[in-house]
Amino acid sequence: MTKPAQRLADLGLTLPDAPKPLAAYVPSVRAGNLVFVSGQLPFRDGNLIATGPVPSAVSIEQARDASRQCVLNALAVLADAVEGDLDRVRQIVRLGVFVASDPTFTDQPQVANGASELLQDIFGDLGRHARAAVGSVALPLGATVEVEMIARVE
Amino acid sequence: MTKPAQRLADLGLTLPDAPKPLAAYVPSVRAGNLVFVSGQLPFRDGNLIATGPVPSAVSIEQARDASRQCVLNALAVLADAVEGDLDRVRQIVRLGVFVASDPTFTDQPQVANGASELLQDIFGDLGRHARAAVGSVALPLGATVEVEMIARVE
Amino acid sequence: MTKPAQRLADLGLTLPDAPKPLAAYVPSVRAGNLVFVSGQLPFRDGNLIATGPVPSAVSIEQARDASRQCVLNALAVLADAVEGDLDRVRQIVRLGVFVASDPTFTDQPQVANGASELLQDIFGDLGRHARAAVGSVALPLGATVEVEMIARVE
Repeated sequence: MTKPAQRLADLGLTLPDAPKPLAAYVPSVRAGNLVFVSGQLPFRDGNLIATGPVPSAVSIEQARDASRQCVLNALAVLADAVEGDLDRVRQIVRLGVFVASDPTFTDQPQVANGASELLQDIFGDLGRHARAAVGSVALPLGATVEVEMIARVE
Repeated sequence: MTKPAQRLADLGLTLPDAPKPLAAYVPSVRAGNLVFVSGQLPFRDGNLIATGPVPSAVSIEQARDASRQCVLNALAVLADAVEGDLDRVRQIVRLGVFVASDPTFTDQPQVANGASELLQDIFGDLGRHARAAVGSVALPLGATVEVEMIARVE
Repeated sequence: MTKPAQRLADLGLTLPDAPKPLAAYVPSVRAGNLVFVSGQLPFRDGNLIATGPVPSAVSIEQARDASRQCVLNALAVLADAVEGDLDRVRQIVRLGVFVASDPTFTDQPQVANGASELLQDIFGDLGRHARAAVGSVALPLGATVEVEMIARVE
């Protein structure tokens, strides 16, 4: 299997700087072999790339991109937790994906696939994770998506 | 204690086939002795048995049945993770229960009890779990309930 | 570092009795070195100190106090899980903070900081946790906030 760092390069992606928490918590905590990554918003270059609910404010396709960006940010945090070496990730264990949703929106899985597919592209079988995707009435800073992650590492 | 498989039979229940994920994730991931089961919807024989929020579209009683169905599906996934032998389940650790809710609905615990009581019926003390039950503005495919689970296994 | 029990006293706080679950689950489950604490509501002396969404029914400041109360209740549960000795807490690992929110409310992190800051006040670095804070359309009993916790213990 190609290494995660190489896969990122192949996909034309570079990890951003790990986002700083918005408040009184930390980007990740390690407990045994599990790393718990805090909920990530779709920041890119300091700005949210999608705000407001799906579909009235944001299309499914834009929301997919936002969930993918959340995962990039989560991976930046995870990389910091393993001293920059994503080869030390043994499994992406679980994603929690919250999608800001109008009350009639029911395609949260499509939105969350932006996150899930990127993880499989980067990590292969090690990126295949359990997931809960749900709608949320409103998310921090008006973000369209928030993604939290648990990973197993060496 | 009676074995889980026997208790299921006593209750007149059979585990369904483990539902396939709706998208780019897997039904469960094991990390050490913990199995993380993806969020399950109230599918029965291929159809959702409850859609829309409580109480405007679905009664509390129907929603309780739906949360119970989610747990049956979660147990089918968990059984697959332990080669069909639910005796290897040492503890149901945590349930996350999301209930599609009208803004004024506040009886999420009653709905979630459909899930929780079934686990205790099947596993006895080993089925007594920590739980978070919350309202959601909208869930995948319009489902009334989504349940995710963490279990400790041999 | 000052001991958690001393810090609680310094802050003029005493742990309440651990709240009883509203239903068919337990206050916490231990799995290995992790303790999973069930979602806690802002009960104080048997009554919810904040009900309804932010900001139409409850101000941000009141909601912050409510999230702090949820954490006090979670710590009471956690203390029970370690035989009353909070010195055995090695790390607060993760908080899930659900904030009952009007659709336009986006300051969930401010609300959740009431919970997060208290943990750091009490535990210092051991209180610095990963976090997901999201909006919820409605919470059990109409509570304004629900907080669940994972801690690592001896």
